[in-house]
Amino acid sequence: MEVDKPVRVALLGCGVVGTQVARLLAEQADDLTARVGAPVELVGIAVRRLGLERDADLPAELFTTDAEALVAREDVDVVVEVIGGIEPARTLILRALEHGASVVTANKALLAEDGATLFAAAESARRDLYYEAAVAGAIPILRPLRESLAGDKVTRVLGIVNGTTNFILDKMDSSGAGFTEALEEAQALGYAEADPTADVEGFDAAAKAAILASLAFHTRVTAGDVYREGIAEVTASDVASAREMGSVVKLLAICSLVEGPDGPAVSARVHPAMIPLSHPLASVRGAYNAVFVESEAAGQLMFYGPGAGGAPTASAVLGDLVTVSRNRLGDVRGAGESAYADLPILQMGSTETRYHVQIDVDDKAGVLAAVAQAFAEHDVSIQTVRQEGRGDDAQLVVVSHAASDADLSATVESIRRMAFVRDVSSVMRVEGASE
Amino acid sequence: MEVDKPVRVALLGCGVVGTQVARLLAEQADDLTARVGAPVELVGIAVRRLGLERDADLPAELFTTDAEALVAREDVDVVVEVIGGIEPARTLILRALEHGASVVTANKALLAEDGATLFAAAESARRDLYYEAAVAGAIPILRPLRESLAGDKVTRVLGIVNGTTNFILDKMDSSGAGFTEALEEAQALGYAEADPTADVEGFDAAAKAAILASLAFHTRVTAGDVYREGIAEVTASDVASAREMGSVVKLLAICSLVEGPDGPAVSARVHPAMIPLSHPLASVRGAYNAVFVESEAAGQLMFYGPGAGGAPTASAVLGDLVTVSRNRLGDVRGAGESAYADLPILQMGSTETRYHVQIDVDDKAGVLAAVAQAFAEHDVSIQTVRQEGRGDDAQLVVVSHAASDADLSATVESIRRMAFVRDVSSVMRVEGASE
Repeated sequence: MEVDKPVRVALLGCGVVGTQVARLLAEQADDLTARVGAPVELVGIAVRRLGLERDADLPAELFTTDAEALVAREDVDVVVEVIGGIEPARTLILRALEHGASVVTANKALLAEDGATLFAAAESARRDLYYEAAVAGAIPILRPLRESLAGDKVTRVLGIVNGTTNFILDKMDSSGAGFTEALEEAQALGYAEADPTADVEGFDAAAKAAILASLAFHTRVTAGDVYREGIAEVTASDVASAREMGSVVKLLAICSLVEGPDGPAVSARVHPAMIPLSHPLASVRGAYNAVFVESEAAGQLMFYGPGAGGAPTASAVLGDLVTVSRNRLGDVRGAGESAYADLPILQMGSTETRYHVQIDVDDKAGVLAAVAQAFAEHDVSIQTVRQEGRGDDAQLVVVSHAASDADLSATVESIRRMAFVRDVSSVMRVEGASE
Repeated sequence: MEVDKPVRVALLGCGVVGTQVARLLAEQADDLTARVGAPVELVGIAVRRLGLERDADLPAELFTTDAEALVAREDVDVVVEVIGGIEPARTLILRALEHGASVVTANKALLAEDGATLFAAAESARRDLYYEAAVAGAIPILRPLRESLAGDKVTRVLGIVNGTTNFILDKMDSSGAGFTEALEEAQALGYAEADPTADVEGFDAAAKAAILASLAFHTRVTAGDVYREGIAEVTASDVASAREMGSVVKLLAICSLVEGPDGPAVSARVHPAMIPLSHPLASVRGAYNAVFVESEAAGQLMFYGPGAGGAPTASAVLGDLVTVSRNRLGDVRGAGESAYADLPILQMGSTETRYHVQIDVDDKAGVLAAVAQAFAEHDVSIQTVRQEGRGDDAQLVVVSHAASDADLSATVESIRRMAFVRDVSSVMRVEGASE
């Protein structure tokens, strides 16, 4: 390819992100030309239906409903996929690679479900597949993990990677609202969808956790490998209880390199957890995202910014587009998938966690001893226990040391069955604190 | 170069950072081989004197005092320079490039003083020159600026990029100590050098500001272009005064894209400033670093982590080493210097800033009116003014709107000369707050 010939880009999807990608391509054209070394030209936009309002600012002749034909065009150098979902996105990306285009995508669900197929197709086509926008919107996190930390050993990634749930939990924390009330406010403000399942049940965060774990540990991790609990069960009382402990409840994506039964293994999970207010992630408010990375040499790093939204996501897409376009001009590829470590995935039951358990008990002698005994029988060591209230308000609040999640879960079950236990009113994992 | 041949690395300098680079190269050898696609082999280490203790763990035959000969060796693919300072580092890097080696360096002072010469040499040799470790230690900030945000328009970079001064200011804030006392503690704990000038007077931060501004705005900015004030004049009273305003004093490196007299221009400066406690940079404690980036599409991003230290800096060096080694194997180069925008540098006097001014005044009528008049005469708009104390303790605390630094400075000078002004007890710029 000669340097003066433009890099030709096809855009799949023209929703919230796609329109911003098209806008930036036009507005930043001169800068992009200087940074890439050739003009970057938008040659086609595939949409489901023509004639919608979004089309107004863009030349009508760019639009087509025939995405298959667009990705097969011989003159397309880079395909940008911002449709989302599994199909037709997967077929279109595979078709684009087959036809010799490089691909930039923001599709976390597809990468987390079937990244292996896409990476293999990119490898055999000798083309780039870049996807910075798939995790944490505008925050540059994949490139630092893949490149900046390539000479280090990442041991743990702890992320707030879903803005909707962070908004809801932040609201519950600041106003004392319950989950339903906070969700309704998030929906009214446009931070949550009418059907909030993907966010609230942790599916979105689990897809991102799979992508982060794959990069951090050079191992294929799919969404199905990620243990997942959403925030629908988090109560105002859980949040208040966290406050009392100097903590805050966050939905965390946690990817860690752990010692499994047969050597090093990967643990990947998404669940609500209490983190201490002193932890850098605790101050991530509203719909913001942040990813906290621990590595052997670098220590603790944090990356913070807007996790979603048209323009921020488009910024990440365009960053990839510049790299991929430069690579096209130089007839080279960036690094492909790195899965050489191929570590086993540790099941949640075997993963070490810590629990905060709040138990409503009858106010009589021997209760604390019996509860302590239940922990001991399951090999779970107690870090702190606090007795609170009197009479009908009597409570025990226990924070454990790290133990297997299965043992902790069994401990809670056995406590639930005790005669003097009126209710186990809050069970939540604890992260980010020293043991 | 065949893929099974190792990438041969020469290390210049074996101090705090160099020993960690050597250690990581040995400890992570298998991972590095997998990530690079070939073994990475340390073939020589240049030091000033042989036989020091640090050499114990490394094969004695690797060491040499003849750095010139080492960089000229035909079998060296990558030279890692962690000596620091201008000479002999510059000559050695130029020699290495001439002899066909790629270069990874952590040398902020050299890049900020004479980056242009180095980049030109890398360009004419068609080799890579990478320097992530030069700014903010382990925090991946240069690669995100250069690559992740390449499709966006960065408008402002605000950084805490010197751990020593952040430690001192944090100490002053948390303990009420004065500058001298806090500096002595930093020295006792090893956070400050015996001669703290480079840190305390802002030279180190100014070099980093030059590098950040160059990358963010695609314009050559040298250390000499950066306006610089250190923290030696910051008093316990300034820090207390910031607290009263709900702010904290930080030494900031501030790089911004501004509207100059002839169109867009770059402003780059290092000085202490008050920032509100609600700003993400306010919670960066101790010797940590953080860089806050504002861009048009991505919005506000922050990168946080350890800004110095042997292992963190070595992590950044190794990340670059992996990229540069991969490039060698693929016989390609990463992107070189990007200075196409070539914007003018705005002088400090013309830069818009905001001032917080605390004035000890005689407690009599008309004082506030006279002070307000002085601001008005210099075209400086007042945002808030607070009268405090009585009698001998009477004070005015004024916070201005944004105005040219020269006008603000002239305003303060004219106030200083007023008969009823006993002292202008604190003058500090205000950043990170809404106007």
